[in-house]
Amino acid sequence: MSLIVMKFGGSSVGTTERMQRVAQRIVENRDAGHQVVVVVSAMGDTTDDLIDQSKRLNSNPPAREMDMLLTTGEQISVALLSMTIHAMGRQAVSMTGWQAGIRTEPLHGKARITDIRPDRIHEALEAGGVVIVAGFQGMTEQGEITTLGRGGSDTTAVALAAAIKADVCEIFTDVDGIYSTDPRVVKNARKLPEISYDEMLELAHLGAAVLHPRAVEYAKHNNVKLVVRSSFTHNEGTTVKEEAVMEQGIVVRGIAFDKDVARISILGVEDVPGVLAGVFGALADGGIDVDMIVQSGVLDGKADFSFTVAGGDAEQAVSIIAGIRAEVPYRETTSETGLVKVSIVGAGMVSNPGVAARMFRAISDLGVSIKMVSTSEIKTSCVIAAEPLQEVVRALHTTYGLDTAEQVFVGGPSERR
Amino acid sequence: MSLIVMKFGGSSVGTTERMQRVAQRIVENRDAGHQVVVVVSAMGDTTDDLIDQSKRLNSNPPAREMDMLLTTGEQISVALLSMTIHAMGRQAVSMTGWQAGIRTEPLHGKARITDIRPDRIHEALEAGGVVIVAGFQGMTEQGEITTLGRGGSDTTAVALAAAIKADVCEIFTDVDGIYSTDPRVVKNARKLPEISYDEMLELAHLGAAVLHPRAVEYAKHNNVKLVVRSSFTHNEGTTVKEEAVMEQGIVVRGIAFDKDVARISILGVEDVPGVLAGVFGALADGGIDVDMIVQSGVLDGKADFSFTVAGGDAEQAVSIIAGIRAEVPYRETTSETGLVKVSIVGAGMVSNPGVAARMFRAISDLGVSIKMVSTSEIKTSCVIAAEPLQEVVRALHTTYGLDTAEQVFVGGPSERR
Repeated sequence: MSLIVMKFGGSSVGTTERMQRVAQRIVENRDAGHQVVVVVSAMGDTTDDLIDQSKRLNSNPPAREMDMLLTTGEQISVALLSMTIHAMGRQAVSMTGWQAGIRTEPLHGKARITDIRPDRIHEALEAGGVVIVAGFQGMTEQGEITTLGRGGSDTTAVALAAAIKADVCEIFTDVDGIYSTDPRVVKNARKLPEISYDEMLELAHLGAAVLHPRAVEYAKHNNVKLVVRSSFTHNEGTTVKEEAVMEQGIVVRGIAFDKDVARISILGVEDVPGVLAGVFGALADGGIDVDMIVQSGVLDGKADFSFTVAGGDAEQAVSIIAGIRAEVPYRETTSETGLVKVSIVGAGMVSNPGVAARMFRAISDLGVSIKMVSTSEIKTSCVIAAEPLQEVVRALHTTYGLDTAEQVFVGGPSERR
Repeated sequence: MSLIVMKFGGSSVGTTERMQRVAQRIVENRDAGHQVVVVVSAMGDTTDDLIDQSKRLNSNPPAREMDMLLTTGEQISVALLSMTIHAMGRQAVSMTGWQAGIRTEPLHGKARITDIRPDRIHEALEAGGVVIVAGFQGMTEQGEITTLGRGGSDTTAVALAAAIKADVCEIFTDVDGIYSTDPRVVKNARKLPEISYDEMLELAHLGAAVLHPRAVEYAKHNNVKLVVRSSFTHNEGTTVKEEAVMEQGIVVRGIAFDKDVARISILGVEDVPGVLAGVFGALADGGIDVDMIVQSGVLDGKADFSFTVAGGDAEQAVSIIAGIRAEVPYRETTSETGLVKVSIVGAGMVSNPGVAARMFRAISDLGVSIKMVSTSEIKTSCVIAAEPLQEVVRALHTTYGLDTAEQVFVGGPSERR
């Protein structure tokens, strides 16, 4: 008998039929003798509908009242899912976040969980029922209702799994698991049987919002075993854990890429302390999200550095930098839009020299020039022109032996919805 | 400065415009220097929509889960109303039933309030904001969410008013107040400036669900001054209190009537102990709601008695009585459908002999025969044929001097929506 946390997203319970399918799935685990705690998000468009309603009454509603409003979405889900399980002749008890003992910091709209007091969950499990907890929400010590912000339901599931010492936390989504790269780009993309927390974090973009980074961090910190799998099939998913086994001869877990990247370079910057802080502080104040930052060295007391932003932010970023020229003197700026960033990710890279070199060669063999490079222990990223993206990703997928493996991807993009 | 509880029903907040009108109304009271606690029901069809959703998943959902589901309706209302008040530049804080300290017995779907701990309400009032409480809901000592059943939001408002010692509890509805009779039937119907709790209870049918009897009883028990008024106009409403002043020469407060009444008579019943209990116990077990019960005496050890039920229940009631003939021997039953019950109600009747006699005369002057009569201290009811109902009510309205008074009803039925 295991103790299992199952988390279902909003699209998994968006219709009567889907709700019933989810209930069936839960009942299967229960009937197999497991203790089951379920975390559910708000159904389908409920949250968006509530936000629309609020905007008609207040264009800038107080965060506290938004939390009061939006938490009803998950409360509706848990009540309906519990009823559906009852209709199948099994016991179930729904709980709001506060009933499940989820305490958060006193911050509305994006609170972090501070503590979980799972007494009621344990009692309900002992009584033999399935426990269904509203995701995305909690309560402060003062009894105020809070929401956890983006990725909230994933975080609820992981935090509950840690608090009740669950054997596994299953995250059900509309995809089959985590892939070696985007199957829409590379037909041979393989579903990964295992992946480490760190690799998952580096591949966040690949996951296409399947698993929120905050939840992965929480799982890593508390060593919660995650399984990402489809709510529509019984296929095995991808297990996310601390030490993920690498297949024979494989050092790279997956190939990630970002489209629509812009590079901005600031050339001939006076190398004085605080220059980087000045530039990136100004960009952050302007709401610009900076991804890669590369500085290659200092020559004659002048430095050149480059960074990437989303294509749509490039113009504003350049104008912000022009605006701080008085504080941060520089010779000139250059920028280039319509680029992509390609990354190879794998914990095996650490102990394998030459992994990055093979990446550079594979790209240059296609006649593509590399505009920026940055590396971390388990990731190497290159910025290149957008056009041959598909060829580059395919070539890298082949280069690192990811095309061939026991477990082969059998569905097409259509199956992923 | 007064402390005011304002209660708004679901139709009063059913659209964006109505929500804004309600918020404006609250802000007026706040700006006049009063402390304001608001109780709101679920918006428009929200509750019905949630019930429909649940029925698609479980035809007989557990009451606990229905409470989890339905309480979201009021939580949405309070959050949106609070946001609307914020949009007008005033402070407001929404609260669920449990946040407002409303404790109930551990009974789902129809719990009674056992206790109110209004600490958070007082704190929020001291901080200068309007407090907006979700009606119809509470929490048990075990932290389970409950609903108060029918009339729940009225009861929430009255109970809160009692707990915080409010100066008045204003119930806003889509009618202007309580009328001397139904204005759709008698054009001269007058809005009553005052009415006593007991009269209000006897006139419940006249109130047309304006004020739930349970809330009136609660108000009477705790001596909470109620005002029933329109959420669409600023007209004075009707005050409901212990000692309501009667206008000069008036002994009857209002004329109530029930349409579609059936009379059932059981003739020649053996006058043995337990006969009445046997008959009405069997009817109650069958889910039949019995209204009037009249037994006129015992002759030769045999009794005749009659009672009334809703027209639609008559057939089933007769068949239930046929089914218990073995235990309760009787000679025969007769029944008659398509009748109406007309009642005069007024605390002044107690000290005025001949009030009932004038009723009987007014009815017989119209050539209408009276089929049943029952009386209480402040009410006399007659069952008559349905057809001349309008003439009978008009005649009684005139007989008791209700047509003429300072305060005359100025709108027509259309204004009452």
